[in-house]
Amino acid sequence: MRYILIGRGKMGRLLQETARAAGDQVEAAFGREDLDQLGRLGKVADVVIDFSRPEALPEICSYVRRTGTALLSGTTGYTSDQLRELQALGSAAPVLWSANFSLGVAVLARALRDVTGVLRPEFDIEVTEVHHNQKTDAPSGTAKLLVEAMDPRQELTPVYGRQGQTGRRNREEIGIHALRGGTVAGTHTVHFFGPDEELEFTHRAASRQIFVNGALRVARLLPGRANGIYDLENILFGE
Amino acid sequence: MRYILIGRGKMGRLLQETARAAGDQVEAAFGREDLDQLGRLGKVADVVIDFSRPEALPEICSYVRRTGTALLSGTTGYTSDQLRELQALGSAAPVLWSANFSLGVAVLARALRDVTGVLRPEFDIEVTEVHHNQKTDAPSGTAKLLVEAMDPRQELTPVYGRQGQTGRRNREEIGIHALRGGTVAGTHTVHFFGPDEELEFTHRAASRQIFVNGALRVARLLPGRANGIYDLENILFGE
Amino acid sequence: MRYILIGRGKMGRLLQETARAAGDQVEAAFGREDLDQLGRLGKVADVVIDFSRPEALPEICSYVRRTGTALLSGTTGYTSDQLRELQALGSAAPVLWSANFSLGVAVLARALRDVTGVLRPEFDIEVTEVHHNQKTDAPSGTAKLLVEAMDPRQELTPVYGRQGQTGRRNREEIGIHALRGGTVAGTHTVHFFGPDEELEFTHRAASRQIFVNGALRVARLLPGRANGIYDLENILFGE
Amino acid sequence: MRYILIGRGKMGRLLQETARAAGDQVEAAFGREDLDQLGRLGKVADVVIDFSRPEALPEICSYVRRTGTALLSGTTGYTSDQLRELQALGSAAPVLWSANFSLGVAVLARALRDVTGVLRPEFDIEVTEVHHNQKTDAPSGTAKLLVEAMDPRQELTPVYGRQGQTGRRNREEIGIHALRGGTVAGTHTVHFFGPDEELEFTHRAASRQIFVNGALRVARLLPGRANGIYDLENILFGE
Repeated sequence: MRYILIGRGKMGRLLQETARAAGDQVEAAFGREDLDQLGRLGKVADVVIDFSRPEALPEICSYVRRTGTALLSGTTGYTSDQLRELQALGSAAPVLWSANFSLGVAVLARALRDVTGVLRPEFDIEVTEVHHNQKTDAPSGTAKLLVEAMDPRQELTPVYGRQGQTGRRNREEIGIHALRGGTVAGTHTVHFFGPDEELEFTHRAASRQIFVNGALRVARLLPGRANGIYDLENILFGE
Repeated sequence: MRYILIGRGKMGRLLQETARAAGDQVEAAFGREDLDQLGRLGKVADVVIDFSRPEALPEICSYVRRTGTALLSGTTGYTSDQLRELQALGSAAPVLWSANFSLGVAVLARALRDVTGVLRPEFDIEVTEVHHNQKTDAPSGTAKLLVEAMDPRQELTPVYGRQGQTGRRNREEIGIHALRGGTVAGTHTVHFFGPDEELEFTHRAASRQIFVNGALRVARLLPGRANGIYDLENILFGE
Repeated sequence: MRYILIGRGKMGRLLQETARAAGDQVEAAFGREDLDQLGRLGKVADVVIDFSRPEALPEICSYVRRTGTALLSGTTGYTSDQLRELQALGSAAPVLWSANFSLGVAVLARALRDVTGVLRPEFDIEVTEVHHNQKTDAPSGTAKLLVEAMDPRQELTPVYGRQGQTGRRNREEIGIHALRGGTVAGTHTVHFFGPDEELEFTHRAASRQIFVNGALRVARLLPGRANGIYDLENILFGE
Repeated sequence: MRYILIGRGKMGRLLQETARAAGDQVEAAFGREDLDQLGRLGKVADVVIDFSRPEALPEICSYVRRTGTALLSGTTGYTSDQLRELQALGSAAPVLWSANFSLGVAVLARALRDVTGVLRPEFDIEVTEVHHNQKTDAPSGTAKLLVEAMDPRQELTPVYGRQGQTGRRNREEIGIHALRGGTVAGTHTVHFFGPDEELEFTHRAASRQIFVNGALRVARLLPGRANGIYDLENILFGE
């Protein structure tokens, strides 16, 4: 595989190391300060991989439109206008965006989507997520992603903690509990509590490396696809 | 719902109590000693629920053939001839057989079937199961059922323990570990260990009641179906 | 062992069944309506076991003072005056009171007490507890008992949930998370998150039976002790 | 703190980086090829930290005897003669040796030692350990250390797996299950299964860094101690 990498942050550098170690070609790598050189580049790669900032979007879009190179993007923080611009790019090339490229989380989201319909409403759902003590917000984006997979129409009411005389649990609640401590890279557990039985689905990330591995795995599947917008699930599960 | 119950063992009695508490009608209940009376009974129920012994099969088959009543069976220990007889009964009524009627295990088996293809061969699979200290065999039938869901063509080699100079793990191994202790009703965990991440799927049964609840839930879905053989997955997941 | 049982609630009845099944003698058993007969009883038992209500305290105290019979009490809801009365009873007999007679929880509290001093302040502590969906308050009494074992001087600040822009975790926080769902009898987990490692201590109760078993085990250790007030830890750990 | 470091393997290099980042002085660091220079060195440090090989023992002993500098050693593979030599060194300086310097494992071993006496024989003990798929032996040294803490007189019979018609669990068994997969740095769980309740104690290591952190923490506690042989437990728990 031949890549163009956009972004020189932690993810960008880790992507570069990992791709090279795997024997792939990094044809070009751009950061904020030299991104304008992308405008002079022809079609030299199979996929553009972008882990940068929303500001880079115009250059990336114009490159993809000009060359038809596939795009995999993990950049977050887009406005809804920018997201629409990204969606529209699907007419020019295969384009995939995700907030989380861990293979395990994608698989977990998929499994949760499948089982929730069968388990609800007999089973109560509670989610716990654990992250290091330097994280400043809660719950995690990944916890939100998992809840969205289970409750796409937002019919459940999130409860972020319980204390005092709470009364009995409401069937339409979904508990979301954020634990913070140590250096934990990210652990997510979804509990289904039913009559006399429970199911527990846990994903444990050991490092940022898994996001890189997931992105590179998916990048390999993009070239040759029909133009259009893809997400992790339809790529991985062949839909 | 109106039921005929066959079997007066622990499961049979618990089924009877639970069905009555739920407001269902138990039209008749037979044990080994009075099963012959089934031959004089007309169509009085929506479903025959059988948790008895293989010896009861002829009477059950002739009743189902005569009346077209749906059959749900959790009886185990059938010979392959008897299983064929049961299969053939699908021409006369909707018939469902399963070794495990826990809703949670059915859902887990389904989720595992879905995710294994995506996670293999990058992820290593290991299974642990825990049962009370009076259980005399290992691994549990449910552990076998879960392994079968993940590896239907038996391409993986089961490993039931490791000690000494084992050498590196072979990619084609699947570890199956039987823990025994206390009064545990049944806990099953499937671990997927990948590069820098892991997924863990656990089912925990608190009592035999869950098998009763699962059987009654599924029994409600049988009447009105086309004649044929069903299993838990196609009933629960609408296939 | 010979017992007098006070209390005919769920715990009282389960105690009676379990003691008899174990071959112990239940010399007398009193409920609210016939407790006055205790006043006419001589010393007929090794231990009085009381799982009743605070109102029964005067009769129990006068019986224990008159006969010197050891007392084990799991009655909760005492006022501080009543607790002082119970304490004073230690001059007349060996007396033990606890809010939780599960052997496992006692052992867990003890282990937590020991390790917290070594792990703090490098390790962050978070507690999760799970109970059935009919429980109306949070956190559980047992969770409080475990936190008290780790932080007897109340130097940590409990945090009962996190949502939004929380900022970094404060070293002096202790997270306490109450999950509710299904029919769970009671699961408590204490997490210690340190730099690149974590410890997790879990207690899982399958039923109310464990409180009965714990009370009977401890009851056997009371007769023959010097008069005085005991708690589970000093009885079990021989201090 | 001022250190002399012996050993330039992975642990040695990580120790050096971590000590320097913490503002400690590394006065000298020797590998196999320049260890002879230790013979010309005076007392320049508070502690000698040794993570090297058994062959380095003579030079280390003669340095410690000559200067009285405290010694912390994590070198493994000593013969019993060499271990005796190390023990004898306690007459010349405070000396501490351990096969595992993770604070969490030390604390866990201590907690297990305390609780096992109370839980046995009512509770059945089972151990699981998880390591990456490149590990070539089983069970792990840390699993052995934990078992030794619970059963110092080796009264229990280890069982390393169960398959087929095993019969009921023997009360004197201790199950030890080695899971292998992915890149797991090391997870150890001890289960105590009792009547209707269970306790589960888990330690999870995220990286080799924890062994370095543990060694440096303990090294700080050595200087100024009376000459003698110490182990992790008596240092950490003040006995």
